[in-house]
Amino acid sequence: MKEFELIAHLTKSLPTNESVVAGAGDDCAVLDMGVPEKLILFKTDAVVEGIHFTRETSPEKIGRKALARCLSDIAAMAGTPTAALVTVALPKDFDAEFVAKIYEGLNTLAENYGVAIVGGETTTNPERILISISLLGTVPRGKQILRGGAKVGDAIFVTGELGGSLAEKHLDFEPRLEEARWLAEHFHLHALMDLSDGLGGDLRHILNASKVGAVILKSSVPVSRAAKQRARENSAAKPPFIAALTDGEDFELLFTIASKDAVKMLDAWKKKFPKLKLSCIGKIVAGEGISIRDKIGSHKFDAHGYVHFA
Amino acid sequence: MKEFELIAHLTKSLPTNESVVAGAGDDCAVLDMGVPEKLILFKTDAVVEGIHFTRETSPEKIGRKALARCLSDIAAMAGTPTAALVTVALPKDFDAEFVAKIYEGLNTLAENYGVAIVGGETTTNPERILISISLLGTVPRGKQILRGGAKVGDAIFVTGELGGSLAEKHLDFEPRLEEARWLAEHFHLHALMDLSDGLGGDLRHILNASKVGAVILKSSVPVSRAAKQRARENSAAKPPFIAALTDGEDFELLFTIASKDAVKMLDAWKKKFPKLKLSCIGKIVAGEGISIRDKIGSHKFDAHGYVHFA
Repeated sequence: MKEFELIAHLTKSLPTNESVVAGAGDDCAVLDMGVPEKLILFKTDAVVEGIHFTRETSPEKIGRKALARCLSDIAAMAGTPTAALVTVALPKDFDAEFVAKIYEGLNTLAENYGVAIVGGETTTNPERILISISLLGTVPRGKQILRGGAKVGDAIFVTGELGGSLAEKHLDFEPRLEEARWLAEHFHLHALMDLSDGLGGDLRHILNASKVGAVILKSSVPVSRAAKQRARENSAAKPPFIAALTDGEDFELLFTIASKDAVKMLDAWKKKFPKLKLSCIGKIVAGEGISIRDKIGSHKFDAHGYVHFA
Repeated sequence: MKEFELIAHLTKSLPTNESVVAGAGDDCAVLDMGVPEKLILFKTDAVVEGIHFTRETSPEKIGRKALARCLSDIAAMAGTPTAALVTVALPKDFDAEFVAKIYEGLNTLAENYGVAIVGGETTTNPERILISISLLGTVPRGKQILRGGAKVGDAIFVTGELGGSLAEKHLDFEPRLEEARWLAEHFHLHALMDLSDGLGGDLRHILNASKVGAVILKSSVPVSRAAKQRARENSAAKPPFIAALTDGEDFELLFTIASKDAVKMLDAWKKKFPKLKLSCIGKIVAGEGISIRDKIGSHKFDAHGYVHFA
């Protein structure tokens, strides 16, 4: 059983109660805990040595990344983060200074975004460092944007540039909190999420939740310089467009909006965020799955990350 | 640097904001998120294979224990649990059925206490299973009971019996949620926590936070049958009273209350919870640290878990 199958099995019939607005399956859980004008966002995310970072990664960047990933999930709900708990699991021979620096990186980012660190724990994981962050946030009642609202005819947008994040960006990215809140305040987004597993896989989550398909225009997908450079330097690397579709850890926003609102939104965006690219990469269509359109024609992009060129 | 020193260093100057009522250092963080009559409780706790359970432990009991520990922390604030996120870190060769059974144990306990499981994640930890639970709860505004409120002259109480938990109880204990809520509703407790590291160490947390000392009456400490049995069967095992002071994972309640309220409270308890022992084990005094009083005299119980008999 693969991870996704296991999760699907485990989340089929979870215990619930009257507080649950949205449970497992979106970027954050959404809870109604009785705040008059707000809903509570609740998220947890772990980074593991050897997978999300190495012993060579600077500890400040490890701590920063651990929290930034969770903040990106709050952005994916157009929410505002409030408070976090930090679990650090460590080998017994840990270097206390290394751990203190993990916290430094984490605390600095928390302060930048007004997030309180309200506790947590250190525990033992003999072979490697694991950091798990739990984050609470809020979203104005009725303004949460889930994955399941995309409609046929919607335009599909992404912020920034995609692919090649592991060269550097995965340790340095800014969670798109301000951008997502601004979008939700001024426009009626239909679906929103953050890109963590790669555009191809993540867009599929929106499509499945919304029961629709998508056509992506190859020439419109913003490919990062890092992905292009890697392809130039290493002939065995992914072609840049495939990297933009399948590399993980972009932590950009992916959203859909009615076509009629798209131009107005894009114009307003350019005034508000002149330094951050926003690209319309395609549209939502009836059916299922992802088609890639280029000069030659239309190609199926399958669930395993392959584009079937004609 | 030991774990407690590291935590003290790390938690010295954590980022904060206006939502924080109580941050690091109590059983749960307490947050004011704008619920008119309630405060939010926020807690995270991890169990690790080889430390809190083994591969031989039944997976249902592993899942149950992971959640029960967190529920006990909500009890320690006299709160009510609402919703949890579950992080399961697994070796790549994990047995999916084993993981499904971890969830079964966890879900059953969640249902018993009305807790919604609203998501989480599976991630990779190559050498061993690690489960981290994040739990949200609520407590009526002004009714949260912290560790720092013990007053000179208070009577000190514990529920249940102490010591020898690792024989079985650590996998089967009931979090004292109902008992703690009933106590907080009907009586004015001064300090409250749950016993996870052993009476001696945990009482010290209340004493330090309250800037007081304690005298414990040896003959009043309720020693578990498991601790007595272990001492009978193995002459190298801790004497039962020392086990009751220093064994971890009792998950009973420890609290203090004004002496004048103690008898009335104890009488009401016996009617309400006739099956669960409640013992007055001593009193809060001026000064610091813990003294143990027996037939011979008074002995210092030091921070390293040793009783200095005269």
